[in-house]
Amino acid sequence: MAPQNVARKLIASHLLEGEMIPGQEIGLRIDQTLTQDATGTLVMLELEAMGLERAATEVSVQYVDHNLLQTDFKNPDDHLFLQAICQRFGIWYSRPGNGVSHAVHMERFGRPGRSLAGSDSHTPAAGSMGMLAFGAGGLDVAFAIAGEPLYLRMPKILGVELVGALPPWVSAKDLVLEMLRRHDVKGCRGMIVEYFGDGLAGLTAMDRHVIANMGTELGATTTVFPSDEQVRRFLRLQRREQDWVELIADAGCDYDLVERIELPALEPLIACPSSPGNVVRVREVEGRPIYQSYIGSSANPGLRDFWIAAEIVKGLRAHERVSLDINPTSRALIENLARLGSFQQLIAAGARFHQAGCNGCIGMGQAPATHQISLRTVPRNFPGRSGTKEDLVYLVSPETAAASALAGAITDPRDLEKLYGLSCPRFAEPEDQAINHDLIAPAPSAGIAERFERGPNIKALPLFAPLVDDAEVPVLLKMDDDISTDEILMAGARALPFRSNIPAISQYAFFAIDETFAARAHVAKEQHGGHVVIAGDNYGQGSSREHAALAPRYLGQIAVIARSYARIAWQNLANFGILALTFVDPADYDWIEQGDQFAFSDLRERVAAGGVIVVRNLTQRRDVRCAHQLSERQVRAVLAGGLINQFRQQRGVGNDGPLRCAR
Amino acid sequence: MAPQNVARKLIASHLLEGEMIPGQEIGLRIDQTLTQDATGTLVMLELEAMGLERAATEVSVQYVDHNLLQTDFKNPDDHLFLQAICQRFGIWYSRPGNGVSHAVHMERFGRPGRSLAGSDSHTPAAGSMGMLAFGAGGLDVAFAIAGEPLYLRMPKILGVELVGALPPWVSAKDLVLEMLRRHDVKGCRGMIVEYFGDGLAGLTAMDRHVIANMGTELGATTTVFPSDEQVRRFLRLQRREQDWVELIADAGCDYDLVERIELPALEPLIACPSSPGNVVRVREVEGRPIYQSYIGSSANPGLRDFWIAAEIVKGLRAHERVSLDINPTSRALIENLARLGSFQQLIAAGARFHQAGCNGCIGMGQAPATHQISLRTVPRNFPGRSGTKEDLVYLVSPETAAASALAGAITDPRDLEKLYGLSCPRFAEPEDQAINHDLIAPAPSAGIAERFERGPNIKALPLFAPLVDDAEVPVLLKMDDDISTDEILMAGARALPFRSNIPAISQYAFFAIDETFAARAHVAKEQHGGHVVIAGDNYGQGSSREHAALAPRYLGQIAVIARSYARIAWQNLANFGILALTFVDPADYDWIEQGDQFAFSDLRERVAAGGVIVVRNLTQRRDVRCAHQLSERQVRAVLAGGLINQFRQQRGVGNDGPLRCAR
Repeated sequence: MAPQNVARKLIASHLLEGEMIPGQEIGLRIDQTLTQDATGTLVMLELEAMGLERAATEVSVQYVDHNLLQTDFKNPDDHLFLQAICQRFGIWYSRPGNGVSHAVHMERFGRPGRSLAGSDSHTPAAGSMGMLAFGAGGLDVAFAIAGEPLYLRMPKILGVELVGALPPWVSAKDLVLEMLRRHDVKGCRGMIVEYFGDGLAGLTAMDRHVIANMGTELGATTTVFPSDEQVRRFLRLQRREQDWVELIADAGCDYDLVERIELPALEPLIACPSSPGNVVRVREVEGRPIYQSYIGSSANPGLRDFWIAAEIVKGLRAHERVSLDINPTSRALIENLARLGSFQQLIAAGARFHQAGCNGCIGMGQAPATHQISLRTVPRNFPGRSGTKEDLVYLVSPETAAASALAGAITDPRDLEKLYGLSCPRFAEPEDQAINHDLIAPAPSAGIAERFERGPNIKALPLFAPLVDDAEVPVLLKMDDDISTDEILMAGARALPFRSNIPAISQYAFFAIDETFAARAHVAKEQHGGHVVIAGDNYGQGSSREHAALAPRYLGQIAVIARSYARIAWQNLANFGILALTFVDPADYDWIEQGDQFAFSDLRERVAAGGVIVVRNLTQRRDVRCAHQLSERQVRAVLAGGLINQFRQQRGVGNDGPLRCAR
Repeated sequence: MAPQNVARKLIASHLLEGEMIPGQEIGLRIDQTLTQDATGTLVMLELEAMGLERAATEVSVQYVDHNLLQTDFKNPDDHLFLQAICQRFGIWYSRPGNGVSHAVHMERFGRPGRSLAGSDSHTPAAGSMGMLAFGAGGLDVAFAIAGEPLYLRMPKILGVELVGALPPWVSAKDLVLEMLRRHDVKGCRGMIVEYFGDGLAGLTAMDRHVIANMGTELGATTTVFPSDEQVRRFLRLQRREQDWVELIADAGCDYDLVERIELPALEPLIACPSSPGNVVRVREVEGRPIYQSYIGSSANPGLRDFWIAAEIVKGLRAHERVSLDINPTSRALIENLARLGSFQQLIAAGARFHQAGCNGCIGMGQAPATHQISLRTVPRNFPGRSGTKEDLVYLVSPETAAASALAGAITDPRDLEKLYGLSCPRFAEPEDQAINHDLIAPAPSAGIAERFERGPNIKALPLFAPLVDDAEVPVLLKMDDDISTDEILMAGARALPFRSNIPAISQYAFFAIDETFAARAHVAKEQHGGHVVIAGDNYGQGSSREHAALAPRYLGQIAVIARSYARIAWQNLANFGILALTFVDPADYDWIEQGDQFAFSDLRERVAAGGVIVVRNLTQRRDVRCAHQLSERQVRAVLAGGLINQFRQQRGVGNDGPLRCAR
């Protein structure tokens, strides 16, 4: 057999369906899953609707790291619900305050050679230890938990050779910012980025985590590092050396594409507002006054990252203009920081030290003031993500964040030598580290936790009927081109708190376009059994939010007829049993009017046949010729009323609604 | 001279006006002020509108401890505004994350024998060190900052003799809960509570802070302790022994009322939902499962309070059902906890450790789950204050909170002996403590900080015209009895974010009664120059919110005519220049109708004269005979258009609107 790179070895060892030809659909066996609380409640409701008995994976873990603010009952209710239902399904539960999923998972559960699917886009961070890790939508992860394959198109492999060692004051964050400088936020779409070369020897597993985590910002499908002596050392410090296996590229292996980074030539970099791809040298923007220096998140989660910030500010004070916000990665990290004295150094320097979790990185607190600069070690600086609409967030290394906190302005950390006579501190990772994540292991069987907490905002996922055969339903809405999922189901504080309550959140379906939509849809469902909507090009662009399919489905949506679709929204429609049709003649869009009555006949047979589907516009007495692009697998799902129904049929789960769970 | 108690000594040494006869109005010299961020922005806008040059107090301090969450730009904008305007007015600024005002003020600025006014109801906590400390409305504190007297009715002095020493596992919190068990939440209204007796020797200054802080819950005007060796020791540990003066009651002094608490007879107590006065023995409710154990706040701020919780959980783990939330009092406290190892013990036991501040105590995060019990060391458990509408908050000592965190249920801490073989830990307060509050001293003169930050949500306080002499204005609203300030200007997330923006918040005036009010008031102001409203008995009950006068005033309200008023709302109306009238014949209320047009003539002269004021109902062609109960001082304020105008006239500030401050 030809010499293989690490990525292809990992894929080959998990391949269940398809061929490893770039662009072709493949189905992969998933060994582990992670979910976080912002997406996890819906995953659990999906599992419940699927009638799952127990998780079929090697290990599945539910983390609570996103919604820690608890300004009312909804978040704490979610936490209790997740804790209880994890016992039911055999899933580990990581309590609020234990820490950020990606780092905790790597420390406690990660195993080289294994595959991981997570309902969080930064799941590829586990590639740092030789895992094959993918971010995915909630239902994809629910299916992985149930033992089903994860489907994706076979990516190309981009090999990035790292040569030499990083210079003083430059760290892994600068390396991945260099990748973003080269490729911007779309340059690695359809690729797995695999790092190799002698430069790897100087990067610890946690340094690699920084790089793999932000591979998501490159648009990469995932990032892969070998499992080498650095990974072995990492697992030894976690007292899990027995979980280590070597996984390295074969000598002489090929990559689809190759590039090279000379590490000694790198210098401190910074991503300017408001894209991770707006990378320049720190030197080019130095001196701009800052309001905030924010350290933490899954993009700089290592003990080293906090330690070096503490060493830089040791004995000094943050500038009086600066809010120095420290967001520890995990409970274990806090203990280790206190053991090293770093915690004390940070507090003495004026830090605001927060509980372990994602916190401000996902806009949960620590928003900056209007038009004020916030320097952050987080992975993303999309506009408004900080919570402040017109924010100015820059992405930096911990070295740059700490140096700038002292100066009160953007500062190249190399200047610390002349400003404070400071030599670059060298981290000696302690051999004896605290290991404390306060995880709750799942119950040994499903029976013992049948009765669980369910706050008033948590409702079972509704079950939906199979696709109808005949229907006469109104066109409830006619929309323009480029309708985003934010318009289909808006984000924000008004609607999203109902994330676990489909009946309630459905009131906001198409709210941004027409506030009367939900009320009219209820009437149409009552009187006609449902409705359709019409759209132009690129329907469903933007976020991957499943609610943008679930809520219209709940309101009786049978079909969308559009000129074209955005990829993920199109998949979500099929997953939840809404028929996504396109016009055979795009000009038909023009003469259809909102309020027209449409007649579908023999719909199930025609969808299965795959040809043209003629829909009668009863109001205008004209026909509309439509088509669909669904695969056979997707056709089965739509006919069944969605993937969940299909799964229930395959597994022989009864049709008596969702599992009954005691309040 | 007759022997005096401490309270009367303090009042006598600050008396500027009136006589020390219970019930009579007295005016007191104020040496120090504190403001917190939730009330402080309005105080600063008031100072600006008053045209103040520099604070006239010995020391004034602006703390940022309430609104630390920063989910959008508004709170951080407020912080920057406060930081800048404090430089302008010569006020100290305590940065976000430094800690809770009451404890930090006591540590850094408190001086026995001095008076303190604070725009926070728990300001009396400083009575723990022999200060005369009052909570007050924002404008009262603004006037104190400007060097004006604080007016109140001379209280009675309740002497409480403490006899003996507290038994093991019983602490200061249990003592004040015993006071609440005896007097409930109204029993000490119109009184100063002064503690004396041999039991004082065993209570440190911080223990006394616990008791003085929660004196507010008794309804007391304030609480006073002597300045004795315990206070001297406290100041020595803060490296301020030079600020100590002795201040003790004279032998044989009298109190208006006296009672006695035998400390050895006390046992662990608990205030049940949802009033601090619902006190029972912990034994009576033990075993109830809990969701949360919350330690922190101004009601248990001492190093000892956190240390004992850490000692109790040391080497153990919080029950898997329990969220153990630790809210440190101050940056200094965090450093001291880390030095003692207590921080590390708490983290190892599973604590969620938050930044220093008020946090969940004022509903900023850490809300409990629905119908789940939260045990808290905070001062208040009013319904919904936690953020969860139907919450179940119990108030306890740190000992009870920590013991219950381990057990997962309400637990008498005395049971720790049999459960874990633990003897009651004895606190030896370290002599060498960290002192770190990161305070920003005011600039030496006003000139240097003229230009300051002012986010888009911070607007200068509008200036108002003097009372009109003649007017023909409509009755815009006729209301029932017992209208609360929540109905006049609603609390909650919709309106309160506009706390620093009177034009914006005025849109919510009377919103809970009539959503069209603000729009109609704008029209009436345009067409008629203002409006009046009619109310029944007890108008303005509830919160002391100044916005309930400011917002209607902004909308052109000239007068309220009511059957009777709640005290603070009545004062606020006068403070902001709205004429509060009562019906001479209460039956006149019945026939007046919303929409009637009222004519006032020679109003200024009639208000000054103090007799009957005849108002003509033009619509019904009938007269309404009214009267007011304002003091001469208040009449002057109302004629001037409010206290702020009056102040500007006295100080010779020009009438050219608020100070111009650069954006």
